[in-house]
Amino acid sequence: MQLDFTRIAPAEAYRWLASTVTPRPIAWVSSRAADGSCNLAPFSFFQVISDEPPTLLVNVSTRDDGSLKDTLRNVRETGELVIQLVSAEQAAAMNASAAVLPHGVSEFAHCNIPSLPGVRVNVPRVAGVAVAFECQVAEIQPYPRETPNCHLVFARILLAHIADEVLVDGGRHVDPARLDLIGRLGGSNYCTTRDRFAMVRP
Amino acid sequence: MQLDFTRIAPAEAYRWLASTVTPRPIAWVSSRAADGSCNLAPFSFFQVISDEPPTLLVNVSTRDDGSLKDTLRNVRETGELVIQLVSAEQAAAMNASAAVLPHGVSEFAHCNIPSLPGVRVNVPRVAGVAVAFECQVAEIQPYPRETPNCHLVFARILLAHIADEVLVDGGRHVDPARLDLIGRLGGSNYCTTRDRFAMVRP
Repeated sequence: MQLDFTRIAPAEAYRWLASTVTPRPIAWVSSRAADGSCNLAPFSFFQVISDEPPTLLVNVSTRDDGSLKDTLRNVRETGELVIQLVSAEQAAAMNASAAVLPHGVSEFAHCNIPSLPGVRVNVPRVAGVAVAFECQVAEIQPYPRETPNCHLVFARILLAHIADEVLVDGGRHVDPARLDLIGRLGGSNYCTTRDRFAMVRP
Repeated sequence: MQLDFTRIAPAEAYRWLASTVTPRPIAWVSSRAADGSCNLAPFSFFQVISDEPPTLLVNVSTRDDGSLKDTLRNVRETGELVIQLVSAEQAAAMNASAAVLPHGVSEFAHCNIPSLPGVRVNVPRVAGVAVAFECQVAEIQPYPRETPNCHLVFARILLAHIADEVLVDGGRHVDPARLDLIGRLGGSNYCTTRDRFAMVRP
């Protein structure tokens, strides 16, 4: 089948892209508004941008009604966020935090998700995750610039928390089996990373 | 364990990011130089950017010696590329195409990878893949701008090829089991998408 992407409706393009550009890593993002209220939400349009300076990208879409998600409002207001990765153990909590709650209602409280204070940022992080990156916003790019339907949040990493339990080789490497992350597929589908294989680069 | 990412060496930052921001989708990118020679190479810092206009991001790192990869040189020269997704069936061919060959030597020929002509772009695509996006370059951003270690290639999708064999529901949806994509983990590790589960958003 051929699909003409210059003529496709945006909702259709989204559906095809979300179901084919897979498996996607999940950024479980905590942030704080200027009024002090906290937010926690998952995003799967997420990727590594740079190692110098260490930078991640979280793509925050605009809601269908044109309003901005709390995550974007918060990182604009306070310039800080924590990006957690999601292990199979946290799948249900992550999904619960995707509920749309009124601004000011914390997903941490609403979903009974335990938190710890950030060390370098004034944002709570999720307790019990394998990996958390405390970040400050480097840049926010509306995309496309003229008529944005999303905002690309470039997040500079200040501090990483990696659970001792997922480390091997004397703390020098992460074991993907212990990390046990999940990935996002299309629709309501997710995959685990439990079926693995290795290929050495030629 | 805590890692201070404001003081970590770039190679160390890379290693931690590549092994924790997982599983990553793989962009298997074909491109053509102005002299007509073709290139095919995999990239896993790859993500959806926008559905209007439909846009993907491929992050092409600079080589350790500061030289530019053929993919970046080609898309700069001719402004076109095809982004293929990688099923388990193509894993070995994708990995073979990651070999560093002299500029002008085609991975299609060197690795015996069958190709088909692009329909909207003058770039060959990989025959037999489940998903291929024919794209034109919308923008190339060096990152960081002053001292770039990578280039963010924003690719506008013109045409998608989706194999009939992976479609269900009368061609309206992709079946992740039939798609059977692989994801990139850290080091030499990959995962399949064969261990799946579903969670409905609250």
